[in-house]
This record gives sequence, structure tokens and C-alpha cells, in this order.
Amino acid sequence: MVSTITELKTRIDAYLDQALPMDIDQPTLKESMCYSVEAGGKRLRPALTLATIEMLGKKIDQNALRAACALELLHTYSLIHDDLPAMDNDDLRRGEPTNHVKFGAGMATLAGDGLLTLAFQWLTDNQLPVDVQANLTLALAKAAGPSGMVAGQARDIEGEGQHLKLTELQYLHRQKTGALLKYAVQAGGIITEQPVTVIDLLGTFGAQFGLAFQIYDDIMDVVATPAQMGKATQKDAAEHKNTYPGLLGLDGAKEQLQKALSQAKAAQQQLAELTGRSMAGFDQFLAYFKL
Amino acid sequence: MVSTITELKTRIDAYLDQALPMDIDQPTLKESMCYSVEAGGKRLRPALTLATIEMLGKKIDQNALRAACALELLHTYSLIHDDLPAMDNDDLRRGEPTNHVKFGAGMATLAGDGLLTLAFQWLTDNQLPVDVQANLTLALAKAAGPSGMVAGQARDIEGEGQHLKLTELQYLHRQKTGALLKYAVQAGGIITEQPVTVIDLLGTFGAQFGLAFQIYDDIMDVVATPAQMGKATQKDAAEHKNTYPGLLGLDGAKEQLQKALSQAKAAQQQLAELTGRSMAGFDQFLAYFKL
Repeated sequence: MVSTITELKTRIDAYLDQALPMDIDQPTLKESMCYSVEAGGKRLRPALTLATIEMLGKKIDQNALRAACALELLHTYSLIHDDLPAMDNDDLRRGEPTNHVKFGAGMATLAGDGLLTLAFQWLTDNQLPVDVQANLTLALAKAAGPSGMVAGQARDIEGEGQHLKLTELQYLHRQKTGALLKYAVQAGGIITEQPVTVIDLLGTFGAQFGLAFQIYDDIMDVVATPAQMGKATQKDAAEHKNTYPGLLGLDGAKEQLQKALSQAKAAQQQLAELTGRSMAGFDQFLAYFKL
Repeated sequence: MVSTITELKTRIDAYLDQALPMDIDQPTLKESMCYSVEAGGKRLRPALTLATIEMLGKKIDQNALRAACALELLHTYSLIHDDLPAMDNDDLRRGEPTNHVKFGAGMATLAGDGLLTLAFQWLTDNQLPVDVQANLTLALAKAAGPSGMVAGQARDIEGEGQHLKLTELQYLHRQKTGALLKYAVQAGGIITEQPVTVIDLLGTFGAQFGLAFQIYDDIMDVVATPAQMGKATQKDAAEHKNTYPGLLGLDGAKEQLQKALSQAKAAQQQLAELTGRSMAGFDQFLAYFKL
């Protein structure tokens, strides 16, 4: 049996609440780091890791939970730094003041640095086999670092005010959003010590899921109300951001979304054949994309 | 034979020059990250790791070099973020414009994030045994993260304008500067797979060296000329920073420096007895402290 996303979120939230404060040795830094992690959202990334572990027939123990939650620390760091005055300069996230509004930009910078570093601590400060720890560390660093997410963010800054081609926009998103979601799914395969063929296919599913995620976000910014989204909409067009609807029109963007989703489903099917296990646990994640 | 610091610096510089650009997948980010790493200084931290490896009787191969240089990436990230307008707001470092002056605060934030993440990539993207990779990752994350350096930086921000007691100042520096220098020495023991008693003693040497390093820096800010230091002096007093001379007077600070140095030498002596090896290679590092 695979847990629901809600059940996974409950376990993730409880673990973060309990474990995070223990590894921070300065009061204001602790307040600042916990503030943004507790403000948390869907916990989509660690939930993907944990669901993958269950689909592959393993139980979620404290070690797997810790390693999965490391990714949520890393994701939260990226949000805090993204919101900084020097970056997107956002005052609100999920309706609450952003970290730097509450703690100042200096402490917010440190909170992000602290969460990023602590992510790697949690990947290795557990009882998983050492080769699993080392594989997770390498995979996360590649996904999140200057060949992955950070490069995508740099590309984003550089692309502002420029008109990107579709291939350029896809590349940007593969790095900026896709790499971390791809890692999220692959981490489940690394933790359960799957053969490389399975880990590759998990990566394909995660990458297509990540692409769909970004296209969907772009589409929602156009079609949804702020109340539905819990944040301002129509923001991309106002800021002349490079988006799928901006580049392809709404219908073209929806077509790209469907394409990414069918490729994700194809990988899901291949995974089921290769492992002999039902991979239906991914369905609840694919149900996220409602148009 | 143990290499001189100059010989080690040459190897470190060459490795960084060659390896760093290969792992950065965005042109401006690459320029920005390389700019600060190439601006480099003494390469003291990786040199400590490599000298320790040699003292323990092992040769420096490409894997050890890569792992040692990871620490220089991490050290450079901390300088870039420290200099940011939201932190110390420094325009010059080693006589050159700081990263954010040259590339903007957004890109400088990303350059720091990229270097921090890449440090963990280099610790695991090599042919060292996986348990060495995992041990290095955990030790560096603890030294650099929210229970180490980042906590010290938060303590520093919070301590501004407050009068710290000697024990508080020592604790701040143990986290802010000491933890990374302690790691630098211990990493040499981890890479050469020493028993825990040796790694602990390496840590004692590194911690006392780190303490001496900070006290010496505080003393030099009072007694040296800008030409000697290659940066502005008398800055701490002007900014009402908490320093050893400020707290204990110049003579008191010199006394604390001598105390730290004799404890470092005691650890060096114990290491020689425990390992049966000459640890005289540390002498050239201790020669740094000239009053």
C-alpha cells in the first residue's frame, strides 16, 4: 500500500518540526530557518521520494524520512534566496511576509545558506548505507548546483528582458525546476538501492513531471484567480517573463503540458514493466495538473 | 617529504583553474564563480588538508586534491556572501572589486550558492572510497552549516553593537572561523582513513590553529599598516566590533594568541607520538603568526 500525499505530508511536517531545531546553534538563525520551513507548502518533493520508496516495496524508516526531508530544506533555501531584494524582491510568500521582510536580508541570506548546508548534513547524518549517502549527496549537488538549479536561476536573471526561444526556455526550466523534481523521484530509487536502469527511468518520470509542473504553473498564472492560487496571478505577463503561454499561446502551452504528461505516464508504465510493481502511486501526483 | 605551502598553493591553483569551469553550466555564473575563486588568497585551508595527508605518509592524488579544493570553494562562497550589501557591504577584497560590485548582488548570491553546492559535489564526485566521501560530507556540513560557520555568522550579526564577554567571543570565533580550519586539518585524516583518536587530535590542532588565526587577525587590524595587510586596518575599532584587543587590550590578546599556539603545538607533539610520524610539516603553518 502506498500512502496518500496527505499522509506523507503529515509525516514530513512532523519530522521537520522535531528534527530541524536540533541542528541549529544560534537562536535568531533557528527562528529564521524554522519560520520558512514551517511556512511550508505541499511538501511535494520529499513526498515524491517517499512515495517512490513505497512503490518500490520498501517501508519508510527514520533514515529515509531524514534523507527525503533534506530535499525540503534545500527547496526552502532556494525560495528564501529567490525572494531576496537582490533577486525577485518578493515581500509575500503564501500570504505571509518573506524571510527577509521578517528577519532582514542578512539573516535571510544566512538562513538560506544554513538550509542548503544542512540538507547535505541530513543526507549523511543517518544510518543509510554509506554508498547510498554518497550517491544521494552527489545526485543532489548536481541537481541543485551550478550545473542544475543555480545555473537555471542564473539563466533566468540573464534572460529577463530577452525573448527566449522554446528550446532555451525548456533548457532553463529543466535546470531551474526540473532538476530538483527529477532528483526527488530518483532519490527514492537510490535509497532503495535500485539498479541503474530503474533509476534512469525514475529520472525520466521526474524530469517530465517537472516540466509539466513548470508549464502548469505558467498556465495557472494566466487562467487562475489569486484566490485559487494563494498568490498574485498575471504576474509573469506584467513582468515580461518568458513563459510557455507567452511563447506558444494558451493552447500551445496546454499542448506542451499534455505532451510532458504523456511522456511521464509512458515512463510510469515502463517502470511497472521493468520492476514488476504497480507504479500507480504516481497517479495522485499526476492528478495535480487540473485544467 | 612534505611540500611547502607555496608548492601546495601552486597545485591547488592549477587544479581550481582547470576543474572549476567544467562544472558550471551558465556563462555569467561561470564568470562570477571563477572571478572570486581565482582572486584567491593563500589557499590556507586546502593546503592544511594536503599537508596533513603528506605528514601522514600518503601521496596527494587527484582525488585528494579535488576533495581538498572543495573546501576552497566553500570558503570562497562564505567570502562572497559576507561581502554582500545585506551583510558586511564591502566593495573591495584583496584590492579588487567584490563579486557583487562586479556582477550585481543577485548573481553574487547565486555564485555563492553555486560554490557551496559544488563543494559537496566535489567531495563525492571522485574515486575516494564511499565511506571517506560520506565522512567528508558530514564533517564539512557540520563545520560550515547552522551548527558551525553559519551559526557563527548569525552570532556576529546579532552581536554587533553588543558588548560580548570573552567566552561569548571565543564561542563565536570557534564557529565562525575555527570550525572550517578544524575541518581542514581533520579532512587530511579522513582522506587517509586514520583512526578516530588521530582525527580527534588533528581536530584539536586545527581548532587551536583557528583560534590563533582569529586572534592574530584582530591584533594585526590594530598594529599593521594597510600596506602590510593588503586591506584597510583599524576597521574593527571604527565599527565597534567585538575583538580580542578590544576586550583584553593588546597585551592580553597577545597572551591569548600564545596560549592557543602552545596548545596547537602540544597537539602536534601528541600526534607525532601517536602516529610515530614527524608532524613538523605543521611548523610552516605556525610560522604564519609573526608579531
